[in-house]
Amino acid sequence: MPTAFPEDSVGLVSPQVFRFSEPLALACGRSLAEYELVVETYGELNATRSNALLICHALSGHHHAAGYHSPDDRKPGWWDSCIGPGKPIDTNKFFVVSLNNLGGCNGSTGPSSTNPATGKPYGADFPVMTVEDWVHSQARLADVLGIQQWAAVIGGSLGGMQAMQWTISYPERVRHCLAIASAPKLSAQNIAFNEVARQAILTDPEFHGGHFQEQGVIPKRGLMLARMVGHITYLSDDAMGEKFGRGLKSEKLNYDFHSVEFQVESYLRYQGEEFSGRFDANTYLLMTKALDYFDPAAANDGDLAQTLAVAKADFCLMSFTTDWRFSPARSREIVDALLAAKKNVCYLEIDAPQGHDAFLMPIPRYLQAFGSYMKRIEV
Amino acid sequence: MPTAFPEDSVGLVSPQVFRFSEPLALACGRSLAEYELVVETYGELNATRSNALLICHALSGHHHAAGYHSPDDRKPGWWDSCIGPGKPIDTNKFFVVSLNNLGGCNGSTGPSSTNPATGKPYGADFPVMTVEDWVHSQARLADVLGIQQWAAVIGGSLGGMQAMQWTISYPERVRHCLAIASAPKLSAQNIAFNEVARQAILTDPEFHGGHFQEQGVIPKRGLMLARMVGHITYLSDDAMGEKFGRGLKSEKLNYDFHSVEFQVESYLRYQGEEFSGRFDANTYLLMTKALDYFDPAAANDGDLAQTLAVAKADFCLMSFTTDWRFSPARSREIVDALLAAKKNVCYLEIDAPQGHDAFLMPIPRYLQAFGSYMKRIEV
Repeated sequence: MPTAFPEDSVGLVSPQVFRFSEPLALACGRSLAEYELVVETYGELNATRSNALLICHALSGHHHAAGYHSPDDRKPGWWDSCIGPGKPIDTNKFFVVSLNNLGGCNGSTGPSSTNPATGKPYGADFPVMTVEDWVHSQARLADVLGIQQWAAVIGGSLGGMQAMQWTISYPERVRHCLAIASAPKLSAQNIAFNEVARQAILTDPEFHGGHFQEQGVIPKRGLMLARMVGHITYLSDDAMGEKFGRGLKSEKLNYDFHSVEFQVESYLRYQGEEFSGRFDANTYLLMTKALDYFDPAAANDGDLAQTLAVAKADFCLMSFTTDWRFSPARSREIVDALLAAKKNVCYLEIDAPQGHDAFLMPIPRYLQAFGSYMKRIEV
Repeated sequence: MPTAFPEDSVGLVSPQVFRFSEPLALACGRSLAEYELVVETYGELNATRSNALLICHALSGHHHAAGYHSPDDRKPGWWDSCIGPGKPIDTNKFFVVSLNNLGGCNGSTGPSSTNPATGKPYGADFPVMTVEDWVHSQARLADVLGIQQWAAVIGGSLGGMQAMQWTISYPERVRHCLAIASAPKLSAQNIAFNEVARQAILTDPEFHGGHFQEQGVIPKRGLMLARMVGHITYLSDDAMGEKFGRGLKSEKLNYDFHSVEFQVESYLRYQGEEFSGRFDANTYLLMTKALDYFDPAAANDGDLAQTLAVAKADFCLMSFTTDWRFSPARSREIVDALLAAKKNVCYLEIDAPQGHDAFLMPIPRYLQAFGSYMKRIEV
């Protein structure tokens, strides 16, 4: 049956579920007795198992990074611009593994899953996860897949933090680390934006202390506001100006509080609405906390170079000029630490107007640089 | 009775209320049949009435700009660092007029006032105000005070927009315009932040379509979130980093969603809480709308120079390097338009780490430059 998928697409893909029954000890002191991870793979694992890549997702991402789930899908996976035959993450060369992280809401065990201890959804009882916890759970997944060492661990934003953590937690198990539009830890301003998003959700009367599922409701308003705030930080001021300017929705101003006057208002409301219908509020809280807590240098009194000294991987860092969520300066902090730790590091600052979201976009200069690095990886 | 007020303070001050009974036609097409303005003045009007200054306030400001309302007051007015004997706005030289704008919640007629037509609080029925409307109401106040021409109209942020509008609406009535940390119109990102704040208030179940007063409640959660978002944009990333960094509230992480882990979270929650107890939600909506709508160049197809061509005032613009709400680039847009319109303009970009809030702060370099300009004004 011929499909209409583009030639450089991985085509139809199906997620698989992996079940883990050995307890996973977590940074918070608690443990998960059993859990599932939902995973997609693209390309073929070679005979020596040396061509496996791990993709780590960001705040609202998931396992479906490339290809289509059905011939009717209008949109491919979230990183389809970068993953596929002939693309930067070339599935003719690599075996690509992409999972939904623990605590997520797209199939892996998370707050909306049933707590085996109570028979009810975990809700707010699901433990807080950290980047380290995710890396441990990903290492177990690698074990099950028979992958002793990743050719590369790759991620953007929060995903880049996981890629970095891999080189610290499992230095022998990763040959290349690609951290894109990432940061060594959040700034006070980053935490502040997360806190606004959390308060929006926590104070929504329909949050019910995180047990809204049992009440048959969702904290829609809170999620909507959280997403709106998030979206502002994902786009550059210029990108917003370019996209919306002060464009009016209609010819005439309405002079009231409810009407949408400017296109940017309509865009944000749509993004917020759409998100609140598909994302779990507890997962959102959990993801923002994982971001806040990430600070690998803290173990060495803030000395990131010392923290990264254990790494055996080569590093590729990329940032985007108009990204003000994780600005180029944040990537340069990592580069400086890696240089101080005498690691091999390649750093690229890409001139792009799209802000933080640029890492998801098919920007020619970015794809070319990304592809160049990936081509050099020996398998 | 000796008081402990500092020597350079205007000391004890009392607000006065002015009542207006001639209808005020508004940009929205509606009109206010009657209204009151609450006003403070500092210094003495001279015999020729040539030394009067008007202070215009920003989003959450009011008439109480300098001095103390009682000997027990712990804090003076909001611009006390700039107004007083010997200060940049020298009350030994000038007669300073400061009012709470229409639609405010500090004494002037606004959404929380009683609507004479219904005998109930206006609430959401209070008309949307624009910067032009405020300037018209301020001109009427000038008439009542017998001030034909202001020596200067001065404001920061939204206040600066009013100062600029004065030179366009009443060119003969203002000799100097000082617009500090201001902008010729909001950017899409500025509007986006306002929209998040508005949605936080509008979707609060206790907003009751703006008629919460009649229900005996306030949309506390919405106001709190709106203020939290606002505060992030008032401070620079650096200022937040300097003030809070990643400082922890307690020694140990709590790993839950409710606890305050970082000092910046505690600061924001406090600011939000405090604000929600003292500010009216409808006023907040109205102020953000006035900001969104301000775009004087729109009348001339976006040509700000043409719009400002009518002005007869001399201009002083000031901006702060780390202000990302209204960055120096926004002030430079105004400067460029003024130069194109062949106006006298003085522009100062002040190196200050405090972000947008810098205009309220006693930064020596700022106070000195401000004072130098004010000294040159002939009265």
